[in-house]
Amino acid sequence: MLKYTTTIRVRYADTDKMQFVYNGKYLEYFEVGRTELLRSVGLPYSEIEKAGYQLPLREAGLKFKQPAVYDDLLDVEAAVEKLYTAEVYIKYKITRKGTDVLIAEGFTSHMFIHEESKKPAKPPKIYIEKLAKYF
Amino acid sequence: MLKYTTTIRVRYADTDKMQFVYNGKYLEYFEVGRTELLRSVGLPYSEIEKAGYQLPLREAGLKFKQPAVYDDLLDVEAAVEKLYTAEVYIKYKITRKGTDVLIAEGFTSHMFIHEESKKPAKPPKIYIEKLAKYF
Amino acid sequence: MLKYTTTIRVRYADTDKMQFVYNGKYLEYFEVGRTELLRSVGLPYSEIEKAGYQLPLREAGLKFKQPAVYDDLLDVEAAVEKLYTAEVYIKYKITRKGTDVLIAEGFTSHMFIHEESKKPAKPPKIYIEKLAKYF
Amino acid sequence: MLKYTTTIRVRYADTDKMQFVYNGKYLEYFEVGRTELLRSVGLPYSEIEKAGYQLPLREAGLKFKQPAVYDDLLDVEAAVEKLYTAEVYIKYKITRKGTDVLIAEGFTSHMFIHEESKKPAKPPKIYIEKLAKYF
Repeated sequence: MLKYTTTIRVRYADTDKMQFVYNGKYLEYFEVGRTELLRSVGLPYSEIEKAGYQLPLREAGLKFKQPAVYDDLLDVEAAVEKLYTAEVYIKYKITRKGTDVLIAEGFTSHMFIHEESKKPAKPPKIYIEKLAKYF
Repeated sequence: MLKYTTTIRVRYADTDKMQFVYNGKYLEYFEVGRTELLRSVGLPYSEIEKAGYQLPLREAGLKFKQPAVYDDLLDVEAAVEKLYTAEVYIKYKITRKGTDVLIAEGFTSHMFIHEESKKPAKPPKIYIEKLAKYF
Repeated sequence: MLKYTTTIRVRYADTDKMQFVYNGKYLEYFEVGRTELLRSVGLPYSEIEKAGYQLPLREAGLKFKQPAVYDDLLDVEAAVEKLYTAEVYIKYKITRKGTDVLIAEGFTSHMFIHEESKKPAKPPKIYIEKLAKYF
Repeated sequence: MLKYTTTIRVRYADTDKMQFVYNGKYLEYFEVGRTELLRSVGLPYSEIEKAGYQLPLREAGLKFKQPAVYDDLLDVEAAVEKLYTAEVYIKYKITRKGTDVLIAEGFTSHMFIHEESKKPAKPPKIYIEKLAKYF
């Protein structure tokens, strides 16, 4: 399994009048998590796009466990469990930095498409090459 | 079952470099859907907060079926299926306006909390009163 | 002068922990204002892009007069004052719907670019044709 | 003069279909800039709020010089020029990290308010104490 943890700081812009982080923001935190996961294996997502591919979401799930508040430091752990599948399935855990307090967890499921045609594509070579050694 | 459909227009701000609506935005569209659902039964969400309650998310799920693009008109249907449960469970369907093209679907699950203490609360009276007749 | 007013509803997502609309959101409200201004003269901004042009911001200014809060209905007035200039200059006034309460005002200044090359362009024909009669 | 530079990474969520960072996002980047400026002098903005004050925007200005794109690393420099004034005036410069390429510049002007009453307040003691030595 491939796993990586990134730390992010909650912005004022991320909060809502309930004093907590707005629910939709967590999908953005997940994005940061998987972006840095990919970068950590030498495959920045921007390289995937330069190679003519994109990786849109097909599905997402989120469980909100504890509220996060303004200026919190959050650890976003992103993990890929299986490689050779038609879909890219990533799991996330967000904890308050330096603690076990689980803020949110969830997943996103993606498929590769060709950037130009927007049609489904097999995982590109660079993706398989860079990730294979972790599985 | 209680159901309501609201139309929203995709903003430029909602799109990303993939040319589609950014995935996190759909949770905002779901918010608009349930807000207008509650307003349609004479219970604006702001009234719930004025009564001292809040309704944060516990869980959410989204399936992205077709991309939505800039300036699209989208119909957001929000539906409540059961009333007397500890959690408020809302289902959503987003279609391109005037068509059957399913853009996204999903759910959000909520629980009532007391605004001050942020502790779990039973559904407030006004909520039960306004919604009971639909079930 | 060309002027148009659109009504928008403040979303929960737009608010921050100060209970007010987050400052950056006003640029999004301005976007909605100018989008509907252009649509009102038969020139949806999407048509400008289909013609191969884009209209990015060069400059923006905002004055925050009164806070807007969750679920407020806001009137966004967008106005174009001059047509034959190198830049497109749009002024905005946001008021609480049905009142004179000024929430925010400001401007955005834009220039046309070619979509492909991202280089500066003269205002496209369709823009001049649709707007000339108002000046 | 007090000055501080923070680095941020452009998220996919920040981009729009023009391929650039959406204009409204820059106010969020400015927020990160001033947040870290305050933290750098030992006065996290959250402390200001804990002391019963808030610092909403009165005015903002932005000049967009060069587009920023997905995954760019940006340096956000925030600077306070004068201390003993009724308003807090902060200037910003965003450059591509490690270069002189100016992406955007601007300012935000703020005033202190009492968190409870939302009425104008003098700059709180902790603010003057922490910042005075820099002026």
